Amino acid sequence: MINRKCIIRLSRYKSALKRLKALGFVKVFSGNLADAAGVTSSQVRKDFSLFGITGNRRGGYNVDELIERIQEILGKNELQKVVLIGAGHIGNALLRYKGFETGGIKIMGAFDIDPEKVRSDGEVPVLPLEEFHEFVHKHSIRVGILAVPDVAAHHVSEIMIGAGITGILNFAPIQLRGAEGVIINNINLEVELENLIYFVNASEKTGKKG
Amino acid sequence: MINRKCIIRLSRYKSALKRLKALGFVKVFSGNLADAAGVTSSQVRKDFSLFGITGNRRGGYNVDELIERIQEILGKNELQKVVLIGAGHIGNALLRYKGFETGGIKIMGAFDIDPEKVRSDGEVPVLPLEEFHEFVHKHSIRVGILAVPDVAAHHVSEIMIGAGITGILNFAPIQLRGAEGVIINNINLEVELENLIYFVNASEKTGKKG
Repeated sequence: MINRKCIIRLSRYKSALKRLKALGFVKVFSGNLADAAGVTSSQVRKDFSLFGITGNRRGGYNVDELIERIQEILGKNELQKVVLIGAGHIGNALLRYKGFETGGIKIMGAFDIDPEKVRSDGEVPVLPLEEFHEFVHKHSIRVGILAVPDVAAHHVSEIMIGAGITGILNFAPIQLRGAEGVIINNINLEVELENLIYFVNASEKTGKKG
Repeated sequence: MINRKCIIRLSRYKSALKRLKALGFVKVFSGNLADAAGVTSSQVRKDFSLFGITGNRRGGYNVDELIERIQEILGKNELQKVVLIGAGHIGNALLRYKGFETGGIKIMGAFDIDPEKVRSDGEVPVLPLEEFHEFVHKHSIRVGILAVPDVAAHHVSEIMIGAGITGILNFAPIQLRGAEGVIINNINLEVELENLIYFVNASEKTGKKG
């Protein structure tokens, strides 16, 4: 079955393959990808067989072919167009994030309610929020990144869904719920860091006991 | 059993409670927190009973008491001190991220190898990487955020672990593996966005078929 975790692993394999390719490698073995993705070799082979990717255990896989095949699966042979709402600190960092472009993802436009943040001189234009609906339709965009403060997040998510966005990557520190047919992926930086701190403290306590 | 998901839910409850408190609410019901965290009411009650938190189903929970109790559990009644390595776009956005401070987390210092990024005039000083080891010891810090480019990430993680850091929140787009006793939480923005795009595309195909 193709679930979220499986697709995340494919993304990681692809990312590792691109690094290997940049270093001049032509062949890759399931063990290399297992290392890079933090899984077992047999997991890598299981994932590949799920998508009909076959290799030669001795000869390995051809790096170029494997990248192309994974990109086909991930739907990345065409450029994936996304939009961003919220051109604050996090939003601006995402606009400059190199990883998206090398992964075939392009932020086409950013939107903000603050007129002072609007500008068209950058590589990606920052436009007034009123133009969001038209822009999304014109460029047939389905995926948006939400990076606005918590109090605005719910309202802005409704604007996005109303304009036809069906996938939202949410950086606002509240748990957004999707409407029917809308996928929301919440990234809560505070919760992630808090979680890490909890387990570091917990393991220190255990360590002291032992 | 207290696992990662349970602690993440506690963080979300706490975050929702602080918002309710800011709006003047005194009492809260498991259904409110269930809404905010995207779980069922019975899950909320199960989590609370796991930590010995009791409430009155009719009268609800007292917001202030509940915040204090959850903060005790999460170890947040004292300020949690963390460091950051990598003062690029993502790193700078994290330095300015309001959510950490309101959550009782304080980035004490940031570090970079680029002398041009070093500055002591900001609220959080950006120091040369050579000073990392001494700084971490002086402030007894155990948790660090890593926001350097992919090629530097592995080397920098070794510097962090060498200085006594036992929890790393990694924003570099490679999967870092922890040493013994070190917890690594990888946040890969490209993988998250790619994943969302895959499922949006997949559901569009299904929708068209149907």
